[in-house]
Amino acid sequence: MLRTFDMGDWIWLSRTLGEEKAVNSQNKSFNIACPAPTADTGYIKLGHGSGGRMTEQLIEQAFLPALSNKILAEKEDASVVPLTADRLAFTTDSYVVSPIIFPGGDIGSLSVHGTVNDLCMRGAKPLYLSAAFIMEEGLCRARLETVVNSMRDACVESGIQLVTADTKVVNKGCADELFITTSGIGIIERQFVPSVSSAEEGDVVICSGDIGRHGMAIMAARAGLDLENTIESDSAPLNIMVDRLAEIGVSLHVLRDVTRGGLAGVLNEIAQASQVGIEIEELQIGVVDQVRAACEILGLDPLYVACEGRLVAIVKAVDEAIALEILRNSPHGQNAKTIGRVVAEHPERVVMRSRVGGRRIVDKLSGEQLPRIC
Amino acid sequence: MLRTFDMGDWIWLSRTLGEEKAVNSQNKSFNIACPAPTADTGYIKLGHGSGGRMTEQLIEQAFLPALSNKILAEKEDASVVPLTADRLAFTTDSYVVSPIIFPGGDIGSLSVHGTVNDLCMRGAKPLYLSAAFIMEEGLCRARLETVVNSMRDACVESGIQLVTADTKVVNKGCADELFITTSGIGIIERQFVPSVSSAEEGDVVICSGDIGRHGMAIMAARAGLDLENTIESDSAPLNIMVDRLAEIGVSLHVLRDVTRGGLAGVLNEIAQASQVGIEIEELQIGVVDQVRAACEILGLDPLYVACEGRLVAIVKAVDEAIALEILRNSPHGQNAKTIGRVVAEHPERVVMRSRVGGRRIVDKLSGEQLPRIC
Repeated sequence: MLRTFDMGDWIWLSRTLGEEKAVNSQNKSFNIACPAPTADTGYIKLGHGSGGRMTEQLIEQAFLPALSNKILAEKEDASVVPLTADRLAFTTDSYVVSPIIFPGGDIGSLSVHGTVNDLCMRGAKPLYLSAAFIMEEGLCRARLETVVNSMRDACVESGIQLVTADTKVVNKGCADELFITTSGIGIIERQFVPSVSSAEEGDVVICSGDIGRHGMAIMAARAGLDLENTIESDSAPLNIMVDRLAEIGVSLHVLRDVTRGGLAGVLNEIAQASQVGIEIEELQIGVVDQVRAACEILGLDPLYVACEGRLVAIVKAVDEAIALEILRNSPHGQNAKTIGRVVAEHPERVVMRSRVGGRRIVDKLSGEQLPRIC
Repeated sequence: MLRTFDMGDWIWLSRTLGEEKAVNSQNKSFNIACPAPTADTGYIKLGHGSGGRMTEQLIEQAFLPALSNKILAEKEDASVVPLTADRLAFTTDSYVVSPIIFPGGDIGSLSVHGTVNDLCMRGAKPLYLSAAFIMEEGLCRARLETVVNSMRDACVESGIQLVTADTKVVNKGCADELFITTSGIGIIERQFVPSVSSAEEGDVVICSGDIGRHGMAIMAARAGLDLENTIESDSAPLNIMVDRLAEIGVSLHVLRDVTRGGLAGVLNEIAQASQVGIEIEELQIGVVDQVRAACEILGLDPLYVACEGRLVAIVKAVDEAIALEILRNSPHGQNAKTIGRVVAEHPERVVMRSRVGGRRIVDKLSGEQLPRIC
């Protein structure tokens, strides 16, 4: 590390092909710039983040074959896209999940689903995506390509278009394989925008499926849990089901995807922002057996475990039947259920009626239950 | 680390206040979830990334006081913003600069300037910004707040509004203090959009100031170079000067900010994309003495060193005088100069006439000259 020398120390400086070395008066040698290897070794090197020829080659070989479209291929500083709406939705999320590839998905599909879902939770139609990659020196190219290909598939399924991207490389040990930050733009074509603060007394609380799969898939993969059946992440885009709900005119007071903080976190946010109470029924909340088993082994409560392909919809009671029918006929919504209702009592509190009939407050989690699950 | 046990191993599991421990049959104890410390120690902990109460507190204490506005304070999954244009510019960049605070700026101001500049290089008016923070466990809160405050100042100077954000925390050693990814949306109100592929024979090449300060400021700070005068980064927003150029009707064929790859990188990209030759004059390219000295010590060529507040404008020759006058009267443009011209000869090549009259090809850099300068 170059830290405390001053000019007087320097006696020799050489520039060899692609590698710069300096020797100080103690005859210790330092690298002052990174080697610029010419051979492709199958791993990411610092030179791939230079903005020079190696960056260009990496983008052309690892990113563009999977992701290219007319706009992205222009390689401009900013992409110019058409838009016809007077309001848009804009969102961003960083993904730091570990491991980056897990049963049911990887950091690539996750980063697309997460942003698509955040957009459609505001009633927006997802249109344009940006992706910024922070790669650790030494990242395996084959793993990067798996991730990039699954981003492409996720973009195709959800109908969003990746239009602008960035790549950075940091020294080995300064990141953990790969972080991806996606931002998304969607257009809002309808008058009413669902909001976390729009739940009303009498509304029903619908969840689009069983909970906890994503978090437990990651946790089981990370811990090497030897379960009878592998838990697959529920990571999925939710925009198609939201589109169908909105088209038919369901009163979507609140839409929220169940991510960090789990179902309990989401319901608490809604109760607080809308100044209402929420009552849920434990028996109506779907948790598949493997998830329940893994949670029991690890001492976790499924209510706090993240999903990445489930939503909570809070709708007028009169719309309950039609909303459930639409959800159950949509991809990723087969097991939708009404799990509770919005009440005037205990504002800002979520209360659960348990299997055995008792009632308990479902509080927000204070710290971290599962780190780096998204 | 929990890796290879199976269910049978487990004999004891306790949940103590905020910390979960498991003991296996070999009587080894593991943490299965992160501690959820209640006291504020002045450093970031994993629990701050949970999406629970600690995340909420961190956002309210460290981010919202500096950055809050009506839209951000809604704390929705995606922000809804008004927009009146039929085209917009969209861009993203991750910032991984080390050190995160340096003479003349920090990763916060840099991440705003970089995205504002990418937008205005397409002739767009920067409107909305997103910011995603990846924080390393143990990050000093005071340093985070310095960065966040300087983001606010940079937003104010450039007139962009931060409307959506995300925070993640990764384990100590899995990131390097702080990475920030910003994305930006701008509206395009004019018919002609500058593009890297629009340089034409006969155009003049203008650079808005001296080059290399940002890269050498970072490098000198990192290496602890003991220079007579500290080199300050040139990091700055360029949208005001671009606005003025466009308003007066200067023919902006190409606008490009000089970042990774330096002036040589940018000019090579333009020559390639526009299928033209570019000739530059070494004598016209501003390099301040400290930057030249630091470059000589470290064996670097200023032509390849990044700036973060300089642009190259390629305009019709008839507009040269007015463009220079506007730039020199704009903030951050006092030292604007014509540095060369676009020629029909040697397409895709940049050629420099040196101080002593010789001519040499200025090629693109292959690997990394200075890692992690942005």
